[in-house]
Amino acid sequence: MRVGIVGCGLIGNKRAAALGGHSLVAVCDRDSARARALAARVPGAAAVALDEVIEKADAVIVATTNDQLAPVAMRAVDAGKHVLVEKPGARSVAELEPLALLAEKRGVTVRVGYNHRFHPAALRAREILDAGGCGPLMFVRARYGHGGRKGYEREWRADPAVSGGGELIDQGVHLIDLARWYLGDEVADVRGRVVTTYWPMKVDDNAFLTLTTRGGQIAHLHASCTEWKNLFSFEIYGRDAKLHLEGLGGSYGVERLSRYQMRAEMGPPDTLIQEYPFSDTSWALEWGDFAAAVSGTQGRGATLEDAVATLRVVGEAYERCR
Amino acid sequence: MRVGIVGCGLIGNKRAAALGGHSLVAVCDRDSARARALAARVPGAAAVALDEVIEKADAVIVATTNDQLAPVAMRAVDAGKHVLVEKPGARSVAELEPLALLAEKRGVTVRVGYNHRFHPAALRAREILDAGGCGPLMFVRARYGHGGRKGYEREWRADPAVSGGGELIDQGVHLIDLARWYLGDEVADVRGRVVTTYWPMKVDDNAFLTLTTRGGQIAHLHASCTEWKNLFSFEIYGRDAKLHLEGLGGSYGVERLSRYQMRAEMGPPDTLIQEYPFSDTSWALEWGDFAAAVSGTQGRGATLEDAVATLRVVGEAYERCR
Amino acid sequence: MRVGIVGCGLIGNKRAAALGGHSLVAVCDRDSARARALAARVPGAAAVALDEVIEKADAVIVATTNDQLAPVAMRAVDAGKHVLVEKPGARSVAELEPLALLAEKRGVTVRVGYNHRFHPAALRAREILDAGGCGPLMFVRARYGHGGRKGYEREWRADPAVSGGGELIDQGVHLIDLARWYLGDEVADVRGRVVTTYWPMKVDDNAFLTLTTRGGQIAHLHASCTEWKNLFSFEIYGRDAKLHLEGLGGSYGVERLSRYQMRAEMGPPDTLIQEYPFSDTSWALEWGDFAAAVSGTQGRGATLEDAVATLRVVGEAYERCR
Amino acid sequence: MRVGIVGCGLIGNKRAAALGGHSLVAVCDRDSARARALAARVPGAAAVALDEVIEKADAVIVATTNDQLAPVAMRAVDAGKHVLVEKPGARSVAELEPLALLAEKRGVTVRVGYNHRFHPAALRAREILDAGGCGPLMFVRARYGHGGRKGYEREWRADPAVSGGGELIDQGVHLIDLARWYLGDEVADVRGRVVTTYWPMKVDDNAFLTLTTRGGQIAHLHASCTEWKNLFSFEIYGRDAKLHLEGLGGSYGVERLSRYQMRAEMGPPDTLIQEYPFSDTSWALEWGDFAAAVSGTQGRGATLEDAVATLRVVGEAYERCR
Repeated sequence: MRVGIVGCGLIGNKRAAALGGHSLVAVCDRDSARARALAARVPGAAAVALDEVIEKADAVIVATTNDQLAPVAMRAVDAGKHVLVEKPGARSVAELEPLALLAEKRGVTVRVGYNHRFHPAALRAREILDAGGCGPLMFVRARYGHGGRKGYEREWRADPAVSGGGELIDQGVHLIDLARWYLGDEVADVRGRVVTTYWPMKVDDNAFLTLTTRGGQIAHLHASCTEWKNLFSFEIYGRDAKLHLEGLGGSYGVERLSRYQMRAEMGPPDTLIQEYPFSDTSWALEWGDFAAAVSGTQGRGATLEDAVATLRVVGEAYERCR
Repeated sequence: MRVGIVGCGLIGNKRAAALGGHSLVAVCDRDSARARALAARVPGAAAVALDEVIEKADAVIVATTNDQLAPVAMRAVDAGKHVLVEKPGARSVAELEPLALLAEKRGVTVRVGYNHRFHPAALRAREILDAGGCGPLMFVRARYGHGGRKGYEREWRADPAVSGGGELIDQGVHLIDLARWYLGDEVADVRGRVVTTYWPMKVDDNAFLTLTTRGGQIAHLHASCTEWKNLFSFEIYGRDAKLHLEGLGGSYGVERLSRYQMRAEMGPPDTLIQEYPFSDTSWALEWGDFAAAVSGTQGRGATLEDAVATLRVVGEAYERCR
Repeated sequence: MRVGIVGCGLIGNKRAAALGGHSLVAVCDRDSARARALAARVPGAAAVALDEVIEKADAVIVATTNDQLAPVAMRAVDAGKHVLVEKPGARSVAELEPLALLAEKRGVTVRVGYNHRFHPAALRAREILDAGGCGPLMFVRARYGHGGRKGYEREWRADPAVSGGGELIDQGVHLIDLARWYLGDEVADVRGRVVTTYWPMKVDDNAFLTLTTRGGQIAHLHASCTEWKNLFSFEIYGRDAKLHLEGLGGSYGVERLSRYQMRAEMGPPDTLIQEYPFSDTSWALEWGDFAAAVSGTQGRGATLEDAVATLRVVGEAYERCR
Repeated sequence: MRVGIVGCGLIGNKRAAALGGHSLVAVCDRDSARARALAARVPGAAAVALDEVIEKADAVIVATTNDQLAPVAMRAVDAGKHVLVEKPGARSVAELEPLALLAEKRGVTVRVGYNHRFHPAALRAREILDAGGCGPLMFVRARYGHGGRKGYEREWRADPAVSGGGELIDQGVHLIDLARWYLGDEVADVRGRVVTTYWPMKVDDNAFLTLTTRGGQIAHLHASCTEWKNLFSFEIYGRDAKLHLEGLGGSYGVERLSRYQMRAEMGPPDTLIQEYPFSDTSWALEWGDFAAAVSGTQGRGATLEDAVATLRVVGEAYERCR
């Protein structure tokens, strides 16, 4: 496919480096210098205007700030192009649902960039669960956070008009997406607290949630940008075993998957730990999954329905848990 | 002091071994063989009837099943004896408040055996916080659980008439007690889920809670007896630093206290980890604190007011979070 | 088999508890109280004189101080009994070789208690190597040590007449035995230093050795009783992978086997870690192996030839590396 | 100072980025493109010929392949310039001693870039030892290695004419330098094996050494480029405590210093672990130390006498331990 990228920040650049055999043909960014810098690094890519990116591409990657995700994706879909839009896909359900309707109407493929599904430990956990290795799932428990950085409260993520929310809609949505993905059921009840404790900003910096699925499974989640030491931990509890995903590489520590298999006589479990000290391949794998989805394969990636469901949980949390 | 012990199970025996210079004079247990076995191991200790234990002792340790904690403690207090009653002190607030009233009337000292406060990592954390080393506290996050054992659903802990509840009133109360102790404020709001997911019993096996203090601090807690691998983790977040208590020795892993101190420029924090690979001294330290309290010193131990407050949280959770 | 135990100290008691379906019939010890205490715990076992132990038993376990290992084993073998003698089997090659000759003459089975071979991580490593999972072996590197204890210099291990040597003949022999077992070749060259650095005693407290096999493989070993924190680490390097055994349970830490498999493109290896948090089963497995050896099965246990070869290395080290 | 850099590879670039307030004025490299690239990144720096680098600079950093270290340093010293020459300083003692003589004659400061001394864990260990925190030192034990990379046997390090040796003169010299630095005594005896086990090259890929100082302290060392998983571990044993340095950041893992302090009653030691998750500051600190040395301060850095002593150990190992 010929690929266009809208938004040439950190994530846009990661996407550009993970297109496999597909060709990046056009990029744009509000900051035209960033667009030109990216185009200069990729032979055959041109920095052009948004309309031209959409026109030239078979598939468009939307990697803008949250406020532009849905509007840009709408234009690309309306032009009949396939779209990979970064998480959370939009600032709200109200913004994202029209995109789902239009995508169906235009018959194009849209996926939402919840790349954490494509980390090797996360994929391996999915395989173990699919093979029944943990028995029926009871609950998940997850912690995700970073320590912010000087001036964090003045970044675009701290402006609700641009971001649609704070830590919950930034890192928290990954936890909700993974919880839904692993538990395989919709969230029916949202409880907890979403608060601003540290950063002088109008959005939340900590979300403490207890979600319950229709089938009664629990997701006990905490996302934080006052974590001080970067942390990613996702624990999955089945009737027969526990899986523990930790680390995302870099400052989040080596990625590892621990499997605690209960023995018939109970007591200490069989313990097997796999480490993934390699560079982050999630972007390449997610792109491959997207390309396969365009070709009609189901795949592992988050659909618009997934993203709408996750934003619905976010919306309920913002409404009820302040 | 002359000490009597009511209840000669695992905990009663640990208490007997941790009395320092004080003398164990009398013990009793519904199972008289257990009482005789304990008495045989301690020179000067006799296995007698409950009334005689109370009569002979200056201080009575009540280490029975939960249903007998308050009734036995009431009799000892009524007889003018000091009492160290094991956590949770009673099955409910309604059962425990009369004990507080009577203790005040009789002018005796009563403490509740929340021994986790006396683990060395917990005490060290308390000192660091008291010295202002973490700045104002924002929230705590804790996980405590074990994997049960064959037949767990037939033990007394699974019978609500005897236990007053399940995992929440068993391990969960330690988390609530520590949260109150560290945050230094009362819980004003209780949210979350208390559920029975695995064990075929009439009490809960998992409690997922988000507590909010009057001052707006959060305690995000999970207690579980479907944890599969024994786990104790208690994380404390101040504006300047994070403390992490892990492990309780034995199958819970080496006890350690990690301190993550934020730097002025933010980024990765200064990290200092202290390990405590020694045998569990919490019982001896708690007893020493109790003895000092009898002599009029304030101390670190949980008072009846603490225990009532914790049971109030438990009661609200059982009411609202099923 | 009917089993007799000579030497009722810590190891004798562990052996008594790990006999599977076999019956302990007789025990003895220089300290007759220790023999009576062990006999009292095992129905059917009697505390008798040494000759009677040998007479009553089909198989004799010799768990004495080092100076008595060979003499007692000789008497039992001479009486036609099978023998499991604790490591190192004797204080020297000169003491052990006659036992090998006599055992062959009498046609009985003798094994030497190098129980570390039967730790689950060690057995699993053996299986991986046998399956060719690491490619040809290049070298091993090992560290084994403890911190001693008050009065260590006055224990029997510190008396060369009783022990035959210090740390090298105590913990060091396990490293030599494992190195020979894994490398599958005889040691042809011994270099390094065997020294007394801390304990005021006439035997060594640290052995730093570099062994070379006839085929040119290396074993780089260090055994120490000034390790301060108990440590067991054994690393095995093949052309394709590295195995790392760590911990022996208890104060040596959880037993774990890490496998680092080199990738074709090199760089960070595939990493798989298995933990064994269970109670020590090595004694039971070694006994089962011994019983199978009596029945004619080859097995995994150390033979007298193994033990002689290990003591030969010890002897050379004591001669050349002071 | 005005600084010149000879050799613009990985290390030359790291040095250029760690000059603090000093000015890089001139650089050169056999590959003139590398020199121009570095000069282009630093305002005020010019890519010129070697003679001009020496002429323009007050201090010259020599970061070439091993065969050019001494010749280039000689020219700079002869011109009266201060020199920071990378480790090992030369391929042999014979090559390095004339530099020491000339430096004394010309009255200039020369230091050898053993930057590991300036890692924060290494510096902290030095402070603890200087304060007597471990008591008299008995021995050190160290492991340092990497897994090589495709084509390693064709790099300059594999050519003895250029490198002067293999793994021992590459990573091994850091261990010898640290051992000498911490033990504070000269090596009087060298034993062990230096071998080529894996890589098809004419230099060693593994060095297993046991060094003994004049005072009888031991350094048990292993350096390897068949380590498969990158590893740096340096353990220091005093009569009262053990220090353990681990990790160098990046693929070597987070840098940490563990301190195991023996208690009077012995048993498990007090354990305190400090982690250094920050970016590598050793180059900047070593440069600062060098600049201070130029100003007459003693400092921590390795002198030519240190480097000669280390190369003497290397030479003996190559002679006796093949």
